Amino acid sequence: MDIPSFVTSILTSLAVFVVLVLVFTWLSRRPGNATVYYPSLLLRGLDPWEGRGRGTRSPVGWIRQAFTASEPDVVAAGGVDAAVYLVFLSSMFAILAFAGIVLLPVLLPIAGTDNALEDSTGRMPSNVTHFEILSLANIEDRSMRLWAFISAVYWVSFVTYFILWRSYKHVSNLRAAARSTSEVKPQEFAMLVRDVPIPPPNQTIKDSVDSYFRALHPDTFYKAMVVTDITKVDKIFQEIEGHKHKIAHAEAVYAESKTANRPEGTRPTHKTGFRGLIGKKVDTIEYCNEQIKELLPKLEDERKSALSEKQQRAAFVFFNSRAAAASASQTLHAQMFDEWTVTEAPEPREVIWANLPRKIYDRHTRQTVVYLIVFVTVAFYMIPITAISAVTTLEKLREKLPFLKVVVDQPFVKTVLQAYLPQIALIVFLAVLPTLLVFLSKSEGIPSQSHVVRAASGKYFYFIVFNVFIGYAIGSSLFSALEKVIKNPTGIFMTLATRLPGTATFFFTFVALRCFVGYGLELSRLVPLIIFHLKRKYICKTEDEVRAAWVPGNLRYNTRVPNDMLIVTIVLCYSVITPLILPFGVAYFALGWLIAKNQVLRVYVPSYESNGRMWPHMHTRIIAALMIYQATMIGIISLKKFYYSTILTPLLVISLIFARTCHARFYPAFAKTPLEVASQQLKETPNMSAIYTAYIPPCLKPEKLEDVQVFEDTQSRTTSRAPSF
Amino acid sequence: MDIPSFVTSILTSLAVFVVLVLVFTWLSRRPGNATVYYPSLLLRGLDPWEGRGRGTRSPVGWIRQAFTASEPDVVAAGGVDAAVYLVFLSSMFAILAFAGIVLLPVLLPIAGTDNALEDSTGRMPSNVTHFEILSLANIEDRSMRLWAFISAVYWVSFVTYFILWRSYKHVSNLRAAARSTSEVKPQEFAMLVRDVPIPPPNQTIKDSVDSYFRALHPDTFYKAMVVTDITKVDKIFQEIEGHKHKIAHAEAVYAESKTANRPEGTRPTHKTGFRGLIGKKVDTIEYCNEQIKELLPKLEDERKSALSEKQQRAAFVFFNSRAAAASASQTLHAQMFDEWTVTEAPEPREVIWANLPRKIYDRHTRQTVVYLIVFVTVAFYMIPITAISAVTTLEKLREKLPFLKVVVDQPFVKTVLQAYLPQIALIVFLAVLPTLLVFLSKSEGIPSQSHVVRAASGKYFYFIVFNVFIGYAIGSSLFSALEKVIKNPTGIFMTLATRLPGTATFFFTFVALRCFVGYGLELSRLVPLIIFHLKRKYICKTEDEVRAAWVPGNLRYNTRVPNDMLIVTIVLCYSVITPLILPFGVAYFALGWLIAKNQVLRVYVPSYESNGRMWPHMHTRIIAALMIYQATMIGIISLKKFYYSTILTPLLVISLIFARTCHARFYPAFAKTPLEVASQQLKETPNMSAIYTAYIPPCLKPEKLEDVQVFEDTQSRTTSRAPSF
Repeated sequence: MDIPSFVTSILTSLAVFVVLVLVFTWLSRRPGNATVYYPSLLLRGLDPWEGRGRGTRSPVGWIRQAFTASEPDVVAAGGVDAAVYLVFLSSMFAILAFAGIVLLPVLLPIAGTDNALEDSTGRMPSNVTHFEILSLANIEDRSMRLWAFISAVYWVSFVTYFILWRSYKHVSNLRAAARSTSEVKPQEFAMLVRDVPIPPPNQTIKDSVDSYFRALHPDTFYKAMVVTDITKVDKIFQEIEGHKHKIAHAEAVYAESKTANRPEGTRPTHKTGFRGLIGKKVDTIEYCNEQIKELLPKLEDERKSALSEKQQRAAFVFFNSRAAAASASQTLHAQMFDEWTVTEAPEPREVIWANLPRKIYDRHTRQTVVYLIVFVTVAFYMIPITAISAVTTLEKLREKLPFLKVVVDQPFVKTVLQAYLPQIALIVFLAVLPTLLVFLSKSEGIPSQSHVVRAASGKYFYFIVFNVFIGYAIGSSLFSALEKVIKNPTGIFMTLATRLPGTATFFFTFVALRCFVGYGLELSRLVPLIIFHLKRKYICKTEDEVRAAWVPGNLRYNTRVPNDMLIVTIVLCYSVITPLILPFGVAYFALGWLIAKNQVLRVYVPSYESNGRMWPHMHTRIIAALMIYQATMIGIISLKKFYYSTILTPLLVISLIFARTCHARFYPAFAKTPLEVASQQLKETPNMSAIYTAYIPPCLKPEKLEDVQVFEDTQSRTTSRAPSF
Repeated sequence: MDIPSFVTSILTSLAVFVVLVLVFTWLSRRPGNATVYYPSLLLRGLDPWEGRGRGTRSPVGWIRQAFTASEPDVVAAGGVDAAVYLVFLSSMFAILAFAGIVLLPVLLPIAGTDNALEDSTGRMPSNVTHFEILSLANIEDRSMRLWAFISAVYWVSFVTYFILWRSYKHVSNLRAAARSTSEVKPQEFAMLVRDVPIPPPNQTIKDSVDSYFRALHPDTFYKAMVVTDITKVDKIFQEIEGHKHKIAHAEAVYAESKTANRPEGTRPTHKTGFRGLIGKKVDTIEYCNEQIKELLPKLEDERKSALSEKQQRAAFVFFNSRAAAASASQTLHAQMFDEWTVTEAPEPREVIWANLPRKIYDRHTRQTVVYLIVFVTVAFYMIPITAISAVTTLEKLREKLPFLKVVVDQPFVKTVLQAYLPQIALIVFLAVLPTLLVFLSKSEGIPSQSHVVRAASGKYFYFIVFNVFIGYAIGSSLFSALEKVIKNPTGIFMTLATRLPGTATFFFTFVALRCFVGYGLELSRLVPLIIFHLKRKYICKTEDEVRAAWVPGNLRYNTRVPNDMLIVTIVLCYSVITPLILPFGVAYFALGWLIAKNQVLRVYVPSYESNGRMWPHMHTRIIAALMIYQATMIGIISLKKFYYSTILTPLLVISLIFARTCHARFYPAFAKTPLEVASQQLKETPNMSAIYTAYIPPCLKPEKLEDVQVFEDTQSRTTSRAPSF
């Protein structure tokens, strides 16, 4: 890739971004689009135009709002998780900005005035770009100027430690504040028990759980709810819900058909066979009502049988105080650890019911198998990626697909294509993976959604760093480099050191594309906008359907975080080699922070709250990125035949010690609930019955609250008897 | 080393053993030696000759008693730790016995009938011993007979898994039984708190600890005792004790000097200077009494100042029930983990007071430094060991030390020396280390003796396996092998595979020496016997002094366990190469079990009780030994150019999975107290005041129990005020 195409690509990205921002400004002011651009406000019952009117009407109002919104506002809108994500973005911004403030004015002149790239006549060859002149590549071997680059690595590392330490502390306090509010949250009174042993024949599982915990926590035990196998009930329940939904839809269609000309209207019909394409034609409203009538008694039967006969060996145990629940969930209960394993309860809405009854050995086995699959995926995706980057030079494409010649030979098209083709291939390629990784993480037997997201995000990070960053950097120029790496894994940093400078422009373009086009699309929400309007026009008939069409998801941390982490890794690794990448990195995280804050305040609605448990995860991976950077820099500087490069080695040790210290100091409060926090006073006496009811899955929930007692009694065989242990 | 010297050495060992056993039988029946051979019985107030009279009188009575004593007897005499050590010995015995039952009848004929060692004429060369013919060395390359050896490795591995699983379960139950007795043990009501934050200026540390825990455990908190700096008090206290001891001794000497001839006697005198050698001569009794009078008020002052002014940032917190203490010690208290870290309290008598106030970062730093030192020690002791084994062939010794020629050239002396010299060098060499390792482990900041013993034992294990086993096996023949290992650490198993068969006789002799001579000395207690009789005759004057001369120590697990582990590693590694080693291994652990049981029942007195926390430690190291064995066997069989040797690779994975499964299932109950166990009913209401008093260090202990309240009040500034938080 030569310089013109590189500059073109960045300018094009920027142009696309400006256009998308203008589109956003225009579209977001039209009231009809409020549900697309302000769903979070609407769901929280706020009018996007009232009160803040002026701000929203002005084209840059959203920017002002994003800046003025305080952290409590963010927590109120998107929860602690969103606030922690913003802290992550601003920390990365701060690290790169502090790095840039020193590195740009110091390293650029030092590099620019050296002349390693000059040819023997003392002139720059014409194929050398300004870009390369301002990089480490222009420093001569053994030059004393390399001391400046070594110092720069130290500066970047210490800035990172400093910012990370502050951020960890900040996030830790955020989490503690969120956990010690005086609000009653059901999960803080509950504990998840798995691996319940098989009870004696005259007891149900519910009875044995009851008597076990009542004996061990006589003063604080409230109730227990045994997890039951709800697959069958849930199927019937979903069927009924589907029919209800169909009736509502059909009635809306029917009402619409009653025009002035034909006041009787047309009763909607559908076919009962596969997807409504074959089978008997029936009147939808009548048919569905009949179906519901048939299904309701079945549902009732199934509910009863699920509660009493399909009890699983897992349960939620409720305590009458937060401190008791926190303490109990951290205490080993059984002498054999494969029985009565206890953990903190996840929030009711993020529980993965199917995973709860999995036994401890089952979980271990599944985890091992999943790790193996992920390892194979990470290791062998390298082959297609390498193939893509080898194939997608434009010349090769022309050779292989001659019919493209006409298009490709246009000078403008050629430049653009040359700039984007490999990147687009890569981005498309990466879009396939997250779903697979979430599925795999779920299969491990993890009990909560937020934990699955963390697990998937970790896997995605390894994938993305190994395959995109390391894979592309090494593979783009030589296939054979791969083999070398396999033969000598410790040599990977040497290989990276040789290859990185050559692939700098690729990653520059990559960062710019992600930054401008990615964030432009994110902000303008063009895709959700189009989908929403299409759905509203052609599919939705009832209010509920319209609502379902615009309700936004959550932030999807599982792909967002690893992608940001990839940018961190890239920018850190290039920060000293070609400091010109730093402004792009800074722009990425500055824009990222701004747009994410806007989206958190106005668009996304969190579907659960993990109180920032993502942070330790991000922290570890930032340090991993930093260490990749440090190891690479040792390689790069020693390639310059500069033997003081070993002066950088202590940095790796310092990073490890830093990671360990942070882990020792902060992590326990993320893995467990500190008693200090759980012992804060509550504003009101908790309504224990409501807490209990919160954990009843929707398909089992009785219609009236008074029926909860019946629900509970059905689980037990010894209700009338005294508790036995 | 040739065969005659090998056989000689084993026969000599056996002869020494028989002699020592006879000596033991004779000496242990003399009443004057009761304090040497039955101290444990005496201390428990049992008469060694009463009741069991017949058994003890008969020469083999001790064997019968060792066999008939049940596990509860062992626990009563030596605690759970001793019982666990016996379980370890019997497990090793069982593993090697089961291995031998199959391997000896199967592998010996297979090896003996092959002829890899024959020369080209089809005859055995004269330098080949029967011993080598019956080993893997005699199997031809690529022979199908190797399948038998591969199966043997599988057999040994699965026997090990089976026995270890059963033993872990057994030990786990032993521990649970010991922890759930209805006896009141102070440590089960206490929790150790470290890293107490600096209190506000108007509070003492004691006050801040009190109010913090009273707020978090309002119903179960009993009292807190802050750790104080007792170095100065303890010095004065020890001085007083020393003077008291001197007075008692002097009075005894004085009384003795009052013979019929000189009824006035001679008042003992001593010099006040260095070690009683220089300085003014004084009357001992008067002088010491004066000193005590002077010191007592100082002691009182120091006690007060220690309690109120020298409070350290660590404390013991007492709860009014076992379950509350167990639960609290497992619960995270502070949001920042570098404050208020809690752990289970160690037993009062094994607390290492000086280590308690160490801060968390100090502990981490110390641990890192100690690990580094141990690593250097393990890595560089290899050099002297290699030097020793290279120098100590007799020929070289003759060359270097020509004056030895006269002795060495005697044929009998020559054989014996040739057999023992390297082994003795090694054993002497190893005797230096344990003290250093205990000191290092203590420096880590570990709060209890039993934990120090575990830590030192782990370090010793690594040392012993790396240096004695791997070091000798590789270094004995070639110095240059060392360099190879350093250059290519993964090649160590290949190198081991090449070298092991050649050093078999060395390790045979080593095992036999340890077994017969080691256990002979252990049983006969010749050294303690001689020391005791000398002390009693020439030094001891008072009853207390005599008692101090015979009181036995504890079992010294820190050297005992790693030495046994070394034998396990050696015997396992040779088990399939030369199965003839198995009977020696079986004999080692059978005799070991018998003698250890005898010593536990009659001799050693445990100085603390960790309820078998040593076991997980042993378990992990047995699996490490097993994996060294498995990796070595893969190397050895592939050296025979037998490409099916990879069939053994899954064993390594199985070992890892087995270790992980055991850890998941059993370990938590060793690291923490299960609530199930802590919730058992107590026989009596615990006397909380006695529990509290148990943790007062001897030098601070008030003479009267009523003074405990004064002790407590001195620590607090807010005694009369209401608790503030």
